[in-house]
Amino acid sequence: MRICVFGASGYVGAVLMRLLLDHPGVTELLPVSSTAAGRPVDEGDWGLGADTLGKLPSGRLLLNRDQALRARPDAVFSALPHGVSARFCEPFFPNSAVFDLSADFRLRDEEAHRLAYGTAPPMKRQRQTAVYGLSELYEEDVKRANLIAVPGCYPTCVLLPILPLARASIISSTITINALSGISGAGKSEKRDSMFVERSENALAYNPGLRHRHHPEMVQEIRLAGIKSELFFTPHLVPMRRGMLSTISIPIAGEPERIAADIEKALQGAYSDKCFISLTGSRIPSIRDVVGSNRCDIGWIVEGAKNGASMLFLFSVIDNLLKGAGGQAVQNFNIRFGFPHECGLPVRGEV
Amino acid sequence: MRICVFGASGYVGAVLMRLLLDHPGVTELLPVSSTAAGRPVDEGDWGLGADTLGKLPSGRLLLNRDQALRARPDAVFSALPHGVSARFCEPFFPNSAVFDLSADFRLRDEEAHRLAYGTAPPMKRQRQTAVYGLSELYEEDVKRANLIAVPGCYPTCVLLPILPLARASIISSTITINALSGISGAGKSEKRDSMFVERSENALAYNPGLRHRHHPEMVQEIRLAGIKSELFFTPHLVPMRRGMLSTISIPIAGEPERIAADIEKALQGAYSDKCFISLTGSRIPSIRDVVGSNRCDIGWIVEGAKNGASMLFLFSVIDNLLKGAGGQAVQNFNIRFGFPHECGLPVRGEV
Amino acid sequence: MRICVFGASGYVGAVLMRLLLDHPGVTELLPVSSTAAGRPVDEGDWGLGADTLGKLPSGRLLLNRDQALRARPDAVFSALPHGVSARFCEPFFPNSAVFDLSADFRLRDEEAHRLAYGTAPPMKRQRQTAVYGLSELYEEDVKRANLIAVPGCYPTCVLLPILPLARASIISSTITINALSGISGAGKSEKRDSMFVERSENALAYNPGLRHRHHPEMVQEIRLAGIKSELFFTPHLVPMRRGMLSTISIPIAGEPERIAADIEKALQGAYSDKCFISLTGSRIPSIRDVVGSNRCDIGWIVEGAKNGASMLFLFSVIDNLLKGAGGQAVQNFNIRFGFPHECGLPVRGEV
Amino acid sequence: MRICVFGASGYVGAVLMRLLLDHPGVTELLPVSSTAAGRPVDEGDWGLGADTLGKLPSGRLLLNRDQALRARPDAVFSALPHGVSARFCEPFFPNSAVFDLSADFRLRDEEAHRLAYGTAPPMKRQRQTAVYGLSELYEEDVKRANLIAVPGCYPTCVLLPILPLARASIISSTITINALSGISGAGKSEKRDSMFVERSENALAYNPGLRHRHHPEMVQEIRLAGIKSELFFTPHLVPMRRGMLSTISIPIAGEPERIAADIEKALQGAYSDKCFISLTGSRIPSIRDVVGSNRCDIGWIVEGAKNGASMLFLFSVIDNLLKGAGGQAVQNFNIRFGFPHECGLPVRGEV
Repeated sequence: MRICVFGASGYVGAVLMRLLLDHPGVTELLPVSSTAAGRPVDEGDWGLGADTLGKLPSGRLLLNRDQALRARPDAVFSALPHGVSARFCEPFFPNSAVFDLSADFRLRDEEAHRLAYGTAPPMKRQRQTAVYGLSELYEEDVKRANLIAVPGCYPTCVLLPILPLARASIISSTITINALSGISGAGKSEKRDSMFVERSENALAYNPGLRHRHHPEMVQEIRLAGIKSELFFTPHLVPMRRGMLSTISIPIAGEPERIAADIEKALQGAYSDKCFISLTGSRIPSIRDVVGSNRCDIGWIVEGAKNGASMLFLFSVIDNLLKGAGGQAVQNFNIRFGFPHECGLPVRGEV
Repeated sequence: MRICVFGASGYVGAVLMRLLLDHPGVTELLPVSSTAAGRPVDEGDWGLGADTLGKLPSGRLLLNRDQALRARPDAVFSALPHGVSARFCEPFFPNSAVFDLSADFRLRDEEAHRLAYGTAPPMKRQRQTAVYGLSELYEEDVKRANLIAVPGCYPTCVLLPILPLARASIISSTITINALSGISGAGKSEKRDSMFVERSENALAYNPGLRHRHHPEMVQEIRLAGIKSELFFTPHLVPMRRGMLSTISIPIAGEPERIAADIEKALQGAYSDKCFISLTGSRIPSIRDVVGSNRCDIGWIVEGAKNGASMLFLFSVIDNLLKGAGGQAVQNFNIRFGFPHECGLPVRGEV
Repeated sequence: MRICVFGASGYVGAVLMRLLLDHPGVTELLPVSSTAAGRPVDEGDWGLGADTLGKLPSGRLLLNRDQALRARPDAVFSALPHGVSARFCEPFFPNSAVFDLSADFRLRDEEAHRLAYGTAPPMKRQRQTAVYGLSELYEEDVKRANLIAVPGCYPTCVLLPILPLARASIISSTITINALSGISGAGKSEKRDSMFVERSENALAYNPGLRHRHHPEMVQEIRLAGIKSELFFTPHLVPMRRGMLSTISIPIAGEPERIAADIEKALQGAYSDKCFISLTGSRIPSIRDVVGSNRCDIGWIVEGAKNGASMLFLFSVIDNLLKGAGGQAVQNFNIRFGFPHECGLPVRGEV
Repeated sequence: MRICVFGASGYVGAVLMRLLLDHPGVTELLPVSSTAAGRPVDEGDWGLGADTLGKLPSGRLLLNRDQALRARPDAVFSALPHGVSARFCEPFFPNSAVFDLSADFRLRDEEAHRLAYGTAPPMKRQRQTAVYGLSELYEEDVKRANLIAVPGCYPTCVLLPILPLARASIISSTITINALSGISGAGKSEKRDSMFVERSENALAYNPGLRHRHHPEMVQEIRLAGIKSELFFTPHLVPMRRGMLSTISIPIAGEPERIAADIEKALQGAYSDKCFISLTGSRIPSIRDVVGSNRCDIGWIVEGAKNGASMLFLFSVIDNLLKGAGGQAVQNFNIRFGFPHECGLPVRGEV
């Protein structure tokens, strides 16, 4: 298969290049850049190992969009920013399957998109066919789609533990989420807030409650799963390169042991045959367990307070550049084109 | 004044040594160790600057308890572990003012102490006179006490924003707290979980809900301030040396702007004349703003969701070794002996 | 093939487990521990992904040596400490090919071993057959050996750039090496010097000049390559998990451009067909280019000073746990058993 | 005294603000910015503790140069970039004592300045009166100067151990220096190479040998001290916020013990009465010992190899923002205006 990667010079693009270069189903890989066409793909990314790039017909140079169009790729992956991405992808659809990692096709509700991103949703007609590519939970849809909106990193980390419980009607109260993210989530552009001296030995909350752009994406999905209560989401930046964690607190009625058993049953039902989801029970997972892998590890604890108030805690961890971005994109590609989920994707975290 | 520091060879001890060596009210400083008496105080802490230790009559050597007793100090600071600390301090009380940084005198309720620490509370009779040294809020008590229980780092970070709101009857719902801590909070003993390779590029939640030993300390104080609802506290380790952050979520009824105004009024009322508390309003503080200082910076945001559920977010940051330990101990010393709060204590964070 | 990994619960062991579990030539993998037999292999290493450990006949449990012996493995990898390793490996030799990552078989000279490690060299007779497994440079020897001494991380990083120049008689002056290492090089045992708070935001030199245990290993190899001058080696610890860098300074006579050309020729001659060596010319490589890969990237610059003194600078970077330990061990396994060098080994660095 | 700080919004400016706000000799402090005049001085530097800025007559706002000129300050500190700095400072000289932290007045040789900085040296006539403010070694000159060129961070770290040995004629061979620097040395401007994701878990050498802009500054000073041999200097970036280390290798003739004794004598002679220099003998200092202080700690080891070649290793560590920039500037201010060296400057490293 012939594959294009748009935005190949960013961090997510670099992850996609690595995964697809080593993917057994990919025979030709074309790196494309909206800003750096004509330059070598490994300039500033020497780790890519340019001596071994046998699958690059372009001779290591980044292509422009017209060159990509002429190549008539079977699939395109776009790691471009929202807005830019839809415009760039439009002429490839529907002849090429489009795996879009931006926010351009994630929200079904036009008004929600407009509020979050400040512009009308792009490709108004075609977007109706888009599928939300949360791989384990929308597998059947992904198989048949030509436009896959790869979920954001925070929604992936948050929805994987919540949705099976929502579908099993276990959750009905307000959901309070605190999440931690590594700095690579902020991308490769030079910003004061992404500098080493600003971020190391530091941490802070930002865009709390309803203010983060990923919030409507989470709300859309919990509503579809039947949850009517509110969801408050507060992300934090912590000094790590990669990795993401959510700590989810949900008040819940009932006896702790029974709740825990219901949760286990619901999560096992959803994930027992999924290679990238590890259920850790009452052992709380660490970010380090999954960095370098496409896994999401999920743990849970139910605390019963004296006054009858109980609280369910869900803990989930992912690598924001893999399961939270490039890895899940390739997982969707695998599903769409009939490869096993884990084809070309790491199941083991780094040491 | 002649001062002893117990546990001088740990991280909190090292902070106390620095603060007291440079404190204008201290003329003699005696470092004491339960495990390393006879060894130089700067062995393994070369940053202490041993050439300039004019106030050390011991000639840089760590003393044992008997030597400390014979010196008849005006005050003792104990950074020893709970259990050990009370036993070590007992003979100094009440002739020396005791500033105990362990948990030995923090909990008034004997059963709560027993549950949290697994042993009967020490110094049963004398502990009745202990004062909880949350400096800004118990100043009048500290002035008259000879046994000051310096609060834990997490309770300090959590209670400073909550208590004034509790006293103003603003809070009545379940309190959900997520906190992040730097690794120095785990102390200087060699543990797998404190190793660089285990902690760098990693984060995790631990002892969630009701399970952390600092939880009863927080509950004691919010109950005293009139809050009857439950408090769930989930701490996280993040890869930083120093620093601590709490993100506090509390459902609240009413119109967001009015709530925010009430909160500002309550916090201003409590802290407008306090040199170590900065109120940042809707600007969320970063840990980096306070590392190296004895400050606590507090921000707040009220989010009103469509379905009428509102949520108050409080954000507070401290340096866990200063305002969360040695700094607040010295602040209490200042209060007790009539120095200004900021005497010998940094108000500015590091660059 | 059936393979045993000794010392499977350490950091290098964890790397070996990952590489061999995913190696296409390995059908059965037996993790063995000298200290934790009977416990699960993924306890404390949850990233290993225990759900996907199909190749583990032991049902995830760490075996003891007797169980390993009964399994009659084709090859054993030992990541045990020096001294312990040889004793553990002895009964497996020569029926199993032994890949020893300790220092037990690296030094040919008995006196040098005794001076460096304080004990007589183990397996006195069999050690004569040991081969120094610097893969690219001793490939023919490795093919025929049953006892492969996998080089230390520092020697690998230092010798790969130096030996081809030595063999080409380009070097005749004193060699001054400064190296930087990530903290995983110190292993998984709990030591004060390996703690997060001691190592983060810190760096220092240690065992300078002739004092590091890897020094005699470097000297042995440069002598074999014909260098008679002295080699001074000063390692430094820097706050990173993984990765190693050497900056090598060698005074050299001649005109800078010509020297640079000679160097390029010698290095190209040695490495142009080697998949894990990247020659970067006058571009200085970064550690990040190779972390996560089994590569060694090598750059060089010749500086001509006004007074006629010229200086050759060589720069080399490796991942200390891969090319500096587990990766090179598997590369030797590949050579020994006829797999391509890169079989099961990463050529690309992480993002 | 009334003092101006130019470039108050950068990292070095932030350090100067802190030191001078708390300096007992400073009564009025005026922060000045070439790019952000009119904005609050603590915007983006919330750690400064704006509530306690009693010495700021400007009401927290950054001033422009004209406002600064009208204030007729006793002294100005400039943390502006080279080129910009001299132009900005010129009208203040000689009425105000000028402490310039840029490179504009460090090099006496015009051609050397031109080669290093690409422009003619500024203030051609006045620069003849400039003094190189390496505080411990040029104290008498600084007392009488009105234009003090504060040395660069690398030259400070390198020259403090070398110059006393040069003056004692102990050094005559080629000097090879490897230095490590924290990232704050690269300043606050947004550059790809200063981003968290580029620098964390990474290290590299840059501008080796003769190529770093600080190299001519080191050469100037060793020549003045009588050294005729070449100096090769290779800096490295390592993932720390603050801190700097040099490892200096110098071949030396003679018996190791005697050389070590000579070195100790020369260094003691120069520094025994200097509060900011700690001589650690054969104990190698760590960066962490001095971060947060204005100290330079110096250690040394002499290695005698079998073939008669001996090597002297010197190790020195500083905080690049204190002794390497703002701290040494204030130390020079103290010397110039008759305060003790340590007035307002920290002698102890952080915990």
